[in-house]
Amino acid sequence: MQDFVFQNSTKLIFGKEKEQLVGQESVVFGKKVLLHYGGGSIKKTGLYDRVVQSLLEQGIEIFELTGVQPNPRVSLVREGIALCKEKSIDLILAVGGGSVIDSAKAIAAGVKYDGDVWDFFDGKAEVTDCLPIGVVLTIPAAGSETSEGTVITNGDGWYKRSTGHPTMRPKFAILNPILTYTLPAYQTACGITDMMAHILERYFTNEKSVELTDRLCEAALRTIINNAHTVLEDPTNYDARAEIMWSGTIAHNDLLGTGRIGDWGSHDIEHEISGIYDIAHGAGLAIVFPAWMKYVYKHDLNRFAQFANRVWDVEIDLNNLEKTALKGIEKTEAFFHSIGMPVRLTEANIGEEHLEQMAKKGTERGPLGNFVKLHENDVLQILKLAL
Amino acid sequence: MQDFVFQNSTKLIFGKEKEQLVGQESVVFGKKVLLHYGGGSIKKTGLYDRVVQSLLEQGIEIFELTGVQPNPRVSLVREGIALCKEKSIDLILAVGGGSVIDSAKAIAAGVKYDGDVWDFFDGKAEVTDCLPIGVVLTIPAAGSETSEGTVITNGDGWYKRSTGHPTMRPKFAILNPILTYTLPAYQTACGITDMMAHILERYFTNEKSVELTDRLCEAALRTIINNAHTVLEDPTNYDARAEIMWSGTIAHNDLLGTGRIGDWGSHDIEHEISGIYDIAHGAGLAIVFPAWMKYVYKHDLNRFAQFANRVWDVEIDLNNLEKTALKGIEKTEAFFHSIGMPVRLTEANIGEEHLEQMAKKGTERGPLGNFVKLHENDVLQILKLAL
Repeated sequence: MQDFVFQNSTKLIFGKEKEQLVGQESVVFGKKVLLHYGGGSIKKTGLYDRVVQSLLEQGIEIFELTGVQPNPRVSLVREGIALCKEKSIDLILAVGGGSVIDSAKAIAAGVKYDGDVWDFFDGKAEVTDCLPIGVVLTIPAAGSETSEGTVITNGDGWYKRSTGHPTMRPKFAILNPILTYTLPAYQTACGITDMMAHILERYFTNEKSVELTDRLCEAALRTIINNAHTVLEDPTNYDARAEIMWSGTIAHNDLLGTGRIGDWGSHDIEHEISGIYDIAHGAGLAIVFPAWMKYVYKHDLNRFAQFANRVWDVEIDLNNLEKTALKGIEKTEAFFHSIGMPVRLTEANIGEEHLEQMAKKGTERGPLGNFVKLHENDVLQILKLAL
Repeated sequence: MQDFVFQNSTKLIFGKEKEQLVGQESVVFGKKVLLHYGGGSIKKTGLYDRVVQSLLEQGIEIFELTGVQPNPRVSLVREGIALCKEKSIDLILAVGGGSVIDSAKAIAAGVKYDGDVWDFFDGKAEVTDCLPIGVVLTIPAAGSETSEGTVITNGDGWYKRSTGHPTMRPKFAILNPILTYTLPAYQTACGITDMMAHILERYFTNEKSVELTDRLCEAALRTIINNAHTVLEDPTNYDARAEIMWSGTIAHNDLLGTGRIGDWGSHDIEHEISGIYDIAHGAGLAIVFPAWMKYVYKHDLNRFAQFANRVWDVEIDLNNLEKTALKGIEKTEAFFHSIGMPVRLTEANIGEEHLEQMAKKGTERGPLGNFVKLHENDVLQILKLAL
């Protein structure tokens, strides 16, 4: 087991109608709140009104920055930074999913920095401080509600890059599973894939003595898999929505990664795809992960066989571990397909035109991944396997 | 799933030689530290010297309060409160196991309260604030290093009572598995039983939709069971010690209890035993838990069968769930025995003299437990089953 430091201070408030507490949780940090969200969906569902009412009841002055897109853009982040500085904002309240939260995090860090915020994403500067961030989560997927990371897209060259810092962890996150009832099936499935990918990135490690976290990862994966079809077929099933929502947070709160070095190569490859194509992150991961698995599984047959056995109930064939491993990969791919995800680039209408460019750009700051180090040609081979 | 709030901010620093960071972690809270510990074992192992040196390097003034006993006493807590007030202590540093940490927590709360500290334990007052607490953990067992609770014994009538508050969570906890190499086998086994009991108390719930936390509980239980004999037979096995140590923290950091109402009847019954007999808490739990299970299992055969299957690999006999359930209980009891724990009161030289008194005292503030509510006669029957 690797040495580690683990601290996750986000206050999680989970359950029915908990968005009504957003005012009292926010006012702790001050009276000027930037309400940050995407488009009209939170207005359609009435969530916007409930949040605003709760904030106003606490005498909070609300400023708004709307229009966050999936794969959130640095241009809007820059707008948010200017607004926060001008209005002396005390707290950024992200109401939405991972894109909105990530955008809020980048704004929060940028406010405390004199240079351009993109410096954090291309390695020219490191985050040291942040405005406080609060969250009302509407999409269980990214785990950004308690993570210390953010991923932002720069339209100037379509770079999608990440950065992180402990101060970026939201101070509080409100999780009401009922808010996810209205999510379209496709978006629900993208979220399920994203949270599974967060666990898989941690699961595939070269660290040998990681039994507790292996088993915790397997527990979360099995729960997600076991509830996925239920939420797709019965979108207002509270219990299943709650399992998925809580799993999405646990998948990425860093506990499951303690003592181990995760991989993250598949995430980086996916960022190249969705940096160019504006495909949903979850859909991109459903395409990349099976291809990545097929490319690397021989590196540690035991781990892939354990995965097949403990997550997918594949019987271990001790005389043919490769067969066991491959069955696990097959089941992973079939599962993503079964929940409506594409598992090939072509299914997402992505051809081979830009594969070489993605492989080159993705590795220009060095090889990707840790389980197996992926150089430019490795990434290209994985992308070709994903065609 | 029940609604819940979850926040655990303790900074966990895990790994080899990490006690050398204690000075820099402590000085954040001030320059006056109360070093709180038990007896001479930390001096024998050299840990005391390393901690003192690290504190002195940060210019910290050290005050000492030693002599914490297993089942820590309110008398020493009162002494600590007086000392902290007199010396204007900034941080209480607990170096030891659960007893030392619990004693530190009670002192920390008492310093901020004008009345007698026992008021917190017999329900006359509630904790509202605390001095900061730091921990260097030497015994993985109680999980007190990140929990918000404390259990203190009052020699005046041998009451053992608990209280808790979020501010009681230690600010940091340093976990170096190597520090546990020198633990006697019996103490190691008591710790293993205690952490398993913390999970079992959460596991046996009447809440139906708790799949994620069920599976997380099972993951932690399997890990503990799988590493228990290794640490007993090979006490300097770093990897196994690390699995046990991290499991002990996860068992009681409240994550595994999110969305569910735990039982805690067995803990309360054990407190009556160790309030009178000064038996190790873990040993008391090894005696009470199997008896409790035998008394209540019919209340939810499905849950006990799931436990038998997922934790102990007992095949589910759908035509005889009771048989499956009983096999799980049998395996639990056999496991405790196999690691050197008593599983009967008589094995711990406790006879039937005080059973009625314990049952009466234990229930004088109301019935115990939640899975099944235990009244005086129920507790007596469980104690008799434990004979």
